[in-house]
Amino acid sequence: MIGSLAAFFTTFSFLPQAIKVIKTKDTSGISLGMYSMFVLGVFLWLVYGLQTGDLPIICANATTFIFASIILTTKIVVEVKSAKEEPAEERSPM
Amino acid sequence: MIGSLAAFFTTFSFLPQAIKVIKTKDTSGISLGMYSMFVLGVFLWLVYGLQTGDLPIICANATTFIFASIILTTKIVVEVKSAKEEPAEERSPM
Repeated sequence: MIGSLAAFFTTFSFLPQAIKVIKTKDTSGISLGMYSMFVLGVFLWLVYGLQTGDLPIICANATTFIFASIILTTKIVVEVKSAKEEPAEERSPM
Repeated sequence: MIGSLAAFFTTFSFLPQAIKVIKTKDTSGISLGMYSMFVLGVFLWLVYGLQTGDLPIICANATTFIFASIILTTKIVVEVKSAKEEPAEERSPM
């Protein structure tokens, strides 16, 4: 019982963060290092679950992988966009 | 092997985020909902690990609990501070 509750909270906790970054595009405070490591770790848990045939581990980590990848991708997209915009402003003579 | 690697990455991924929020105090993009749910979930994993006597689960989640609690506390402290500062500016006649 406690294990399922724990799995529910840690898995779905990433949903509000995914919604927030999609809505606000405010990713400056979010650590690229964290989500790179975390997405890799969750992916490894998924591989582990598939290897051992452990359905709860597969389901929990597949769900978390989706949410965490959305956050990581949004962070990278926003960073790349703001990096592109900066030099353009400096170059323009106006 | 893959399980230990997965545990390492998901556990220590929160360290760079904890360092970043302590250094920058930039928590606007961080979801309070996420870290409230996540800290609760990690705490439940800790209880689960203690109940089952599963040392890896206890160690991984105790470590993650510390990092995630630092992030959650910093987020709350920064929010409370900025909430206090806002009305003060509005009230002051200058």
